[in-house]
Amino acid sequence: MHQRELHRTSRPVIGLVTDFGLSDPYVGQMKAVLASLAPEAVIVDITHGVPPHDILRGAFFLDVSLPWLPPGAVLAAVVDPGVGSDRRMVCLEARGRLVLAPDNGLVSLTIGREEVAGAWSFAAPEMASATFHGRDVFAPLAATLAGGEHPMRLGLVIDPASLVVLPGIEPCLAQGAVSVVVLHTDRFGNAILGLEIERWKDVLDAAPRLAVRSPVRRTVRRVTAYAALAPGELGLLAGSQGYFELAMNRISAAETLGLASGDGIILGLDEEE
Amino acid sequence: MHQRELHRTSRPVIGLVTDFGLSDPYVGQMKAVLASLAPEAVIVDITHGVPPHDILRGAFFLDVSLPWLPPGAVLAAVVDPGVGSDRRMVCLEARGRLVLAPDNGLVSLTIGREEVAGAWSFAAPEMASATFHGRDVFAPLAATLAGGEHPMRLGLVIDPASLVVLPGIEPCLAQGAVSVVVLHTDRFGNAILGLEIERWKDVLDAAPRLAVRSPVRRTVRRVTAYAALAPGELGLLAGSQGYFELAMNRISAAETLGLASGDGIILGLDEEE
Amino acid sequence: MHQRELHRTSRPVIGLVTDFGLSDPYVGQMKAVLASLAPEAVIVDITHGVPPHDILRGAFFLDVSLPWLPPGAVLAAVVDPGVGSDRRMVCLEARGRLVLAPDNGLVSLTIGREEVAGAWSFAAPEMASATFHGRDVFAPLAATLAGGEHPMRLGLVIDPASLVVLPGIEPCLAQGAVSVVVLHTDRFGNAILGLEIERWKDVLDAAPRLAVRSPVRRTVRRVTAYAALAPGELGLLAGSQGYFELAMNRISAAETLGLASGDGIILGLDEEE
Repeated sequence: MHQRELHRTSRPVIGLVTDFGLSDPYVGQMKAVLASLAPEAVIVDITHGVPPHDILRGAFFLDVSLPWLPPGAVLAAVVDPGVGSDRRMVCLEARGRLVLAPDNGLVSLTIGREEVAGAWSFAAPEMASATFHGRDVFAPLAATLAGGEHPMRLGLVIDPASLVVLPGIEPCLAQGAVSVVVLHTDRFGNAILGLEIERWKDVLDAAPRLAVRSPVRRTVRRVTAYAALAPGELGLLAGSQGYFELAMNRISAAETLGLASGDGIILGLDEEE
Repeated sequence: MHQRELHRTSRPVIGLVTDFGLSDPYVGQMKAVLASLAPEAVIVDITHGVPPHDILRGAFFLDVSLPWLPPGAVLAAVVDPGVGSDRRMVCLEARGRLVLAPDNGLVSLTIGREEVAGAWSFAAPEMASATFHGRDVFAPLAATLAGGEHPMRLGLVIDPASLVVLPGIEPCLAQGAVSVVVLHTDRFGNAILGLEIERWKDVLDAAPRLAVRSPVRRTVRRVTAYAALAPGELGLLAGSQGYFELAMNRISAAETLGLASGDGIILGLDEEE
Repeated sequence: MHQRELHRTSRPVIGLVTDFGLSDPYVGQMKAVLASLAPEAVIVDITHGVPPHDILRGAFFLDVSLPWLPPGAVLAAVVDPGVGSDRRMVCLEARGRLVLAPDNGLVSLTIGREEVAGAWSFAAPEMASATFHGRDVFAPLAATLAGGEHPMRLGLVIDPASLVVLPGIEPCLAQGAVSVVVLHTDRFGNAILGLEIERWKDVLDAAPRLAVRSPVRRTVRRVTAYAALAPGELGLLAGSQGYFELAMNRISAAETLGLASGDGIILGLDEEE
């Protein structure tokens, strides 16, 4: 009766996003617990390379990866500087998947645009360590939920509007320019901006003359592929993550512009008056 | 008759700890062999981030991760600077799991506190390379053992007391202070000390005034969670790995104190006389 | 009728070689797609640590790992600076396995020595992003092929001789010395040379006096294991990857000699005249 109706694949799927890195045994211990409690599950390591305690980065990785997991999947996101404090642990249902996370802003991007079908909070069991809820709380919860248990059986219903949201991630359009945060700079040096393609495509398509105005000044060309850029040329393209990104061909746009995740930039849409 | 009685999960589980890193194809080739020989097994990468040839670190990762694998699991640990020499390859049964490793000290922490139910040594097959026993010896052995074969069918019984043990890892309590080695400094800067919680809890609980005395001098406060520490404050807590650790809140204790894995520290329990 | 006859393991196996690294969510999204489309497959991460856009390194990792995957496996290699351009995407059958890759030289080493049983090219589907064919094209193709579909059903037959081959990777023997490229320097500092053991063993066995002549001059001793080398001594050994490699015992030969992947070296076989 309380089994979820979400499953469509033959094996349960559990995705993981953490800031644990891969040089400590922490991810391994989470997965050892999952091997015990959900041996039939497919475990998908989205990434464990969130910089330590970088909630914005975790929120971005979580949000852009969720739709690629099959419907019914559980995505556990553990970037958790407040572990052991009274911060809540929450589950929300969005896009037909379940997200598990500490309530510290990790779901900011997801609840900003998705219809949230439900939200619940959980208490840590007595036996859990005070320092490693990824292994002791989130992994067992993920295993149980991936097995088909409904979150209403495990937690208390909460108001999605009560979830913590990171401040300052909303782009601002004014005077022919957009102020926006850099969500992530990737291994190839692409700087992914907080501009969703669906929402900003028309504005950027209509822009007569694109240019970065801050922190440096530089002309930008709209392109559709990295390979379309000439050497040294800066491009703006609708990236694979659902956001617009600044890119160069085979060199790092982020390094060239001096951009890092969390930085603000100003993108001009036309010549300055 | 010689099938082991250990299995309790529906699929065999093989854990891996190595110093191979993830930028070379070595781990991938080990796992390709496992995909051939044990396609039904769940492979749990504990970590491949042991620094090259760092046996103490490998011993620590192995020991703290073993109990999180399900009973019946096989944990292969490959940190093996002596590959191709006459060092032994061994298997031991502890905590209801099997450990495979070169006999170079990797099981030091495990045999120091666990009852060893059995130990065996193995010869390398003729066809094995002289430089990559992880792929050519340990992976096939792990697959066979995970499939339920008893190690007595594959190796020779040895005396657990003959296994190589790393020197200098035993803490020393004298004159109101404990001398102890740093087993590991993790991604978050926590310095994990060679003080098992079970064994040292009473001593540390009774300490009137904790302080690091060497290599630097610094007051320490007993806490139960990172988030309980004030900015800049140094804490000692019962960590998730079963050992006490020095930690700070959102900054690196190891860097602040100048500590690295393998360093010795002196922890004072009371004011110096 | 068009089902392939290659499968010999109980579960399909898909290997992955990419330059995506593990700090971005790109590998995770590829594997999320595979979890949706091929939930029963064993996914083997050969490595995602190819340096960005380093096709030679990718070609090496692909070639040396292919034979360790079980017959019938599909190996998808994605090092793809030309994504979104008109470069072809190809599949080839070699050693009883299938390789998927952009046609940019990634299969150079494989087609140089293997009999290619077939080669096909594929078009990107309309819905694919222009910047992330690993997730949007290669992962779905790999899932379909791993499920048993024959590549002739999905692509157009091409002439293997039309595949792009990297220039300058062929060793040159002249005047008592071999000029050869360094294919890879690994985590342990071993410098793997473009000298296949099978093809070069007799030449090197017959060499009276081995020495590196360029970029530095240094005597070399033939050994069979790292542990056989004295401190500071440089060795040449038949490595686990099927190629000869320069190595030292517990220190980095590559760093000592100043070698990096792609560098050329000259290996003298006898005293210079």
